[in-house]
Amino acid sequence: MREFVLLALKAETSPDFNLDNLPDAGRMDLVCRTISNTLLISNHIRDNTIINVVLNGPKDPPKIISFYGNNVKNLEPDEKTIARFIKNALKDGLKLKLNEEIETSPGIKISKKSFETLIKEKSSTSQLIYLHPKGEDLRKFDFEDNVTFIFGDYIGLPKKTERLLDRLGAKKISIGPVMLFASHCSVLVHNELDRRINKSHNASQPSL
Amino acid sequence: MREFVLLALKAETSPDFNLDNLPDAGRMDLVCRTISNTLLISNHIRDNTIINVVLNGPKDPPKIISFYGNNVKNLEPDEKTIARFIKNALKDGLKLKLNEEIETSPGIKISKKSFETLIKEKSSTSQLIYLHPKGEDLRKFDFEDNVTFIFGDYIGLPKKTERLLDRLGAKKISIGPVMLFASHCSVLVHNELDRRINKSHNASQPSL
Repeated sequence: MREFVLLALKAETSPDFNLDNLPDAGRMDLVCRTISNTLLISNHIRDNTIINVVLNGPKDPPKIISFYGNNVKNLEPDEKTIARFIKNALKDGLKLKLNEEIETSPGIKISKKSFETLIKEKSSTSQLIYLHPKGEDLRKFDFEDNVTFIFGDYIGLPKKTERLLDRLGAKKISIGPVMLFASHCSVLVHNELDRRINKSHNASQPSL
Repeated sequence: MREFVLLALKAETSPDFNLDNLPDAGRMDLVCRTISNTLLISNHIRDNTIINVVLNGPKDPPKIISFYGNNVKNLEPDEKTIARFIKNALKDGLKLKLNEEIETSPGIKISKKSFETLIKEKSSTSQLIYLHPKGEDLRKFDFEDNVTFIFGDYIGLPKKTERLLDRLGAKKISIGPVMLFASHCSVLVHNELDRRINKSHNASQPSL
């Protein structure tokens, strides 16, 4: 399973944000692009992928919205369609108690949970990985079967978050020499994993 | 120089499209995401990059809008900001004659020119490359200094376009085993070229 966590420090947690002005909703545009690039490919949804976006902006942080590729319906790659799903989830999640989770449409869940709690949960079943300029090259890294990639938004991951990840045994990878958006990083990570699966499939074929 | 051409067969050429409903403007959302992923990186614009989008939808095709990374101003990565630049260019380009070109804001030009004419022009100064499942692996391909990547939209490149590209000596590359959006392909292409520049820089340093 490929899992992604985007920590969106300013993204709004109120459902009142304007679908026609996503940048002003704490850069909700960036959140939507990351979901789009992480889950959607040409004519398909990646059914081996989950993305969790941690929204930490006003007025009711934290909220985590999770999109399950194996079950989500009617997701389109444009920012506004995805933002509409987020807005609906935030509406339905207004009265959630701490650590409670509900499904708001097929394959989309919202919980009132902190980034720290989520990451600790994931660390027990999945290899945690975050991006760092001094990390090991993505193309050489030894991935486990269950991986969870943690990305920051335009602000990046705070130092204290990196320290938490280090304490949980997270690994650092580098994706290349240029600093990219989270939405770009998921494309590169998927491509590397797709190539490896393909190679191992090909290797198991008789060579004709 | 890294140049990109997106052939958007249905994208509208009338400036009347609705900025709040980009998918219905012939998948203008896809056009905007491709421009965003091709030109913008974290806190920067790629100044070694040009992207030309060929709009072939109603009501006045063809129109080509070109974004020059070394000169464009105020470009933000969200779809709507980019769509606004496209809309303004289409407005200013309403009365263009065939093959005429004007600059509509710094680093953004519009011309009334066909895809075929554009590609023939590029072929004289740049290595033409298009994606094909049977192409050579991106990671092994021998790139020249000036490259022009040609992508299709959700419809893909028509067979007759591939034949034209073949006649012009275009090369085929493959980016991986999964069929992706054009907007993803530019991320992968840039990453490969970034890595090679970095490697050649490092190689020219004394090894300390």
